[in-house]
Amino acid sequence: MTRAPRFTRTVAALPATVPFVGSDTLERRMGRPFAARLGANESRFGPSPRAVEAMVQAAPDAWMYGDAESYDLRQALAKLHNIDAEAIVMGSGIDGLLGLLVRLLVEPGDPVVTSDGAYPTFTYHVAANGGALHKVPYAGDHEDPDALIAKARETRAKLVYIANPDNPMGSWHSAATIARMIAALPDDCMLALDEAYIELAPAGAEPLFDTSDPRVIRFRTFSKAHGLAGLRLAYAIGAPSTIAMFDRIRDHFGVTRIAQAAGLASLRDVEWLHHVKTRVAAARAELSEIATAHGLRTLPSATNFVAIDCGGDGDRARAVLAGLQGRGVFVRMPGVAPLDRCIRVSCGLPEDHALFDAALGETLREIDGG
Amino acid sequence: MTRAPRFTRTVAALPATVPFVGSDTLERRMGRPFAARLGANESRFGPSPRAVEAMVQAAPDAWMYGDAESYDLRQALAKLHNIDAEAIVMGSGIDGLLGLLVRLLVEPGDPVVTSDGAYPTFTYHVAANGGALHKVPYAGDHEDPDALIAKARETRAKLVYIANPDNPMGSWHSAATIARMIAALPDDCMLALDEAYIELAPAGAEPLFDTSDPRVIRFRTFSKAHGLAGLRLAYAIGAPSTIAMFDRIRDHFGVTRIAQAAGLASLRDVEWLHHVKTRVAAARAELSEIATAHGLRTLPSATNFVAIDCGGDGDRARAVLAGLQGRGVFVRMPGVAPLDRCIRVSCGLPEDHALFDAALGETLREIDGG
Repeated sequence: MTRAPRFTRTVAALPATVPFVGSDTLERRMGRPFAARLGANESRFGPSPRAVEAMVQAAPDAWMYGDAESYDLRQALAKLHNIDAEAIVMGSGIDGLLGLLVRLLVEPGDPVVTSDGAYPTFTYHVAANGGALHKVPYAGDHEDPDALIAKARETRAKLVYIANPDNPMGSWHSAATIARMIAALPDDCMLALDEAYIELAPAGAEPLFDTSDPRVIRFRTFSKAHGLAGLRLAYAIGAPSTIAMFDRIRDHFGVTRIAQAAGLASLRDVEWLHHVKTRVAAARAELSEIATAHGLRTLPSATNFVAIDCGGDGDRARAVLAGLQGRGVFVRMPGVAPLDRCIRVSCGLPEDHALFDAALGETLREIDGG
Repeated sequence: MTRAPRFTRTVAALPATVPFVGSDTLERRMGRPFAARLGANESRFGPSPRAVEAMVQAAPDAWMYGDAESYDLRQALAKLHNIDAEAIVMGSGIDGLLGLLVRLLVEPGDPVVTSDGAYPTFTYHVAANGGALHKVPYAGDHEDPDALIAKARETRAKLVYIANPDNPMGSWHSAATIARMIAALPDDCMLALDEAYIELAPAGAEPLFDTSDPRVIRFRTFSKAHGLAGLRLAYAIGAPSTIAMFDRIRDHFGVTRIAQAAGLASLRDVEWLHHVKTRVAAARAELSEIATAHGLRTLPSATNFVAIDCGGDGDRARAVLAGLQGRGVFVRMPGVAPLDRCIRVSCGLPEDHALFDAALGETLREIDGG
């Protein structure tokens, strides 16, 4: 007999694709580093100096396992959000937490609803568990809460996903719209509300927390406004009965000790968060000015990136993206039409924007002639 | 209708237990920290100073996602082990990698074989996926390769687990014994060989790597000899065709940037690893002397801990453990008879051992009178 492990039917049927090719991988393929790193919606303004100091202090203690309960950090988050700590579970980034949520709910064939063009890592986790994905189109440049709920009802979905603010378009819904979506949610359907960018959104996008509702789970991260993407630190907020289910399957010691220390320090540095918000707002305006100067339109953004409409179809945007990357400027773009008329540019430092400006000009001249 | 998400049947049936109650949790329950932390087989000798320096250097870069391929670290490991980098996948500790392996193979009801009393986190992951666990007893203080293979054949197991060296007993098998076990493995069964402590074992416990065999996957970690438990960094080695399957379900950005930097620095600090091995050997001898002085027998150990036979049954060992913990000395013990006649004490610094010595003396006097 041939030596062959028996992988599950679901795994055996999966493609070998990955949700995102990392910037480091792209750099190795090119043979050189990017001059401007504006593709992964990282916080170019960096982590809080107090978080950096906490990491430095924690480094010699790396021989100790971290606290499996992330007790101090969860207490601080509970205070910040005025909820019970039992309503919070920490995880290795929203990616890790979404993976756990899907495993809690989805058996092979179970229906799950998301938007066509929304976060690919969510889709990846659903596929990894054999879920049956049902997608609805965006309404313009926004995810469509009504269509998502209608599809959830139609398919009897166990789980529906929405991001507010949205990635990759940067658009957002009001708290009232999200609250209406929750009110319309079927009683036996879970809503995953991904709020990775919420700290960077205008006031009024954040519904009140209701941790009495076992059907709503909200995701927050230290990767974006807090500038700690490389540490993998995020949390989910939900009803304690829902949150407790994570303890049945999660890797209890999976959140690093150093991340817990840095997260706590970052939470306490309110001034830094304010500083980052200010810088992000200015950077969004600057990216918009650059695009406008090149004859392109930008979409309003509630995030640390700006979607720029390249004024054509997906092929045109892909050509712009290739031109930028070839000139050392790392950006990404949405994967499906009609969103893929845009490129997605992360907020950067003035020097990053200058490189983007120059590369965009050269690229457009190359594409359009002249 | 009641608001209730529909968790999977497997998850709904799981207990709310956790594989290990963490030392931080125990300390919160007691209301004070442990004076000696000898229960989690952490490396009390700490991480390499070069690894600490790498963490300090990497801290300001925490705003960037880590390399999803851990390219540099995998290249260094490939060179160290003289294998291809495609035979290596990094993960968030062996715990995280074992969880992925189980998900790759185990559907509800699928048979899995392990030893009764072996690593609880493996058992936890099997339960989380609905696997049917079949356990064989230890042979004396060793896991029993022959019994494991026989049970795998009998149950048509998809997966069989063994640790070499073993946790919680500290015993080990020769490379020849493990090689014979591999030779006897059914063609369609995967062997998970957990080598978390292998750097601390005597020469001759480590079989040659054969990455042409898709049925064998070996686990290594930076948590033990390298003293980086708090960073969650480990790797699996196997046939590239087996390793590639992890890419279908793993959290691609889940290994932190700072862990990758520290791991690479630690690998390069060969002197530190040698230093730790020397310290561990001396600490094992010292723990053995302490136990002997109190009239107890220690088991030979190939790890950074020593199993101490308390000279009675599980109740006696549990009383010793409780007496030690009550005196501020954190240790653990095996969970099943007859292994549970022992406590498991991690190698510590001289001051830790002095606290253990004193607490053990007081505890035994309390239990035995006199």
